[in-house]
Amino acid sequence: MSDIFNSNRFFVVIGNRAVTAPFRLSDMPGSAGRMDIMCRCVAQALFISHGIRRDTSVCLVLKGEPDPPKSILIRGDSVRYLAPDERNVGGIIRKALSLSLTNEWIKSTPGVYVARKDIGDILKEIKKDFRILYLREDGIDIRKSRFGEKTAFVLGDHIGLTEKDEKVVLRFADSIVKLSPLSLQADQCIVITHYELDRLKT
Amino acid sequence: MSDIFNSNRFFVVIGNRAVTAPFRLSDMPGSAGRMDIMCRCVAQALFISHGIRRDTSVCLVLKGEPDPPKSILIRGDSVRYLAPDERNVGGIIRKALSLSLTNEWIKSTPGVYVARKDIGDILKEIKKDFRILYLREDGIDIRKSRFGEKTAFVLGDHIGLTEKDEKVVLRFADSIVKLSPLSLQADQCIVITHYELDRLKT
Repeated sequence: MSDIFNSNRFFVVIGNRAVTAPFRLSDMPGSAGRMDIMCRCVAQALFISHGIRRDTSVCLVLKGEPDPPKSILIRGDSVRYLAPDERNVGGIIRKALSLSLTNEWIKSTPGVYVARKDIGDILKEIKKDFRILYLREDGIDIRKSRFGEKTAFVLGDHIGLTEKDEKVVLRFADSIVKLSPLSLQADQCIVITHYELDRLKT
Repeated sequence: MSDIFNSNRFFVVIGNRAVTAPFRLSDMPGSAGRMDIMCRCVAQALFISHGIRRDTSVCLVLKGEPDPPKSILIRGDSVRYLAPDERNVGGIIRKALSLSLTNEWIKSTPGVYVARKDIGDILKEIKKDFRILYLREDGIDIRKSRFGEKTAFVLGDHIGLTEKDEKVVLRFADSIVKLSPLSLQADQCIVITHYELDRLKT
């Protein structure tokens, strides 16, 4: 498991109220604490047309009731049975939330891992290998930012980051980056981040 | 109803197999003919963080069984009860598909209209007011494109456009535009189109 973060692009998304126990797929925006946002972030991080971004992974840090925090890691290089619709992604998250946890990553389904980890634990784990960028609306324009071979992007859900989580993120972040002149949804930020990086590569 | 296309940005999305009768919200990627793609396109066309793009409208041209074609228009300036999750958007589409149709737009719910119209009918209606751009992977880079005050973007679902539909679109299109070096999903194309236009405006 030493290569668990073996991707070039990595997205870390904080779900402030996203629940930490199995939930109803038919009520993800309500009783599951805006789990729909988490699902869209996973889909937008990993899918292109007719394919998966094998060089990308995404980690959801779920902080809602009843058993926070839990982190779910989905690796583009090994995930299977994933489709881009919210209900499918929700099913994969729900399965991971049904497992008994430890502080170490355990495998839920192919390419999907879950652990009792908070945002600080995740960033500490990836710090050695990744340049960490915090996506916030007052940062440096992404078009003026530098990217290493391996870059991780941290972003929040509709609530943003709590003051406490932001302090943790700022301790690890190499830079604060902004994308758009408008305030966008988390999954839209992921689409745009990929897009800007894709343009740099070609 | 003469101002039915009263927006500055307009997205026209063709759903080749998206069904034209009420469907099960729990099986949108399957028996509803990839209606999940249509839902994501609506959400990405209309939502920003904590708000709706009032200057944007989106039209879905549904061509699946049992009763094609049907077009559903959702206006950002007047839509209500819309949330960005697929299930919510699906409910709004399903309601519109339950109505008896004519060749003229009829209102389903606030800001949502439905009619027996195919892609050619839609483009003919908007041609007078909008510059029409067809999003295709071999077009001119969007960063080198010109935009008028009112621009419409035409794009297909995972299948793309049939030869027949493409002929119709090319008859109306002012230009063919490409976004990314990669082949992306329809909703991702909408996010990026908005993003590029938002950057031009500021």
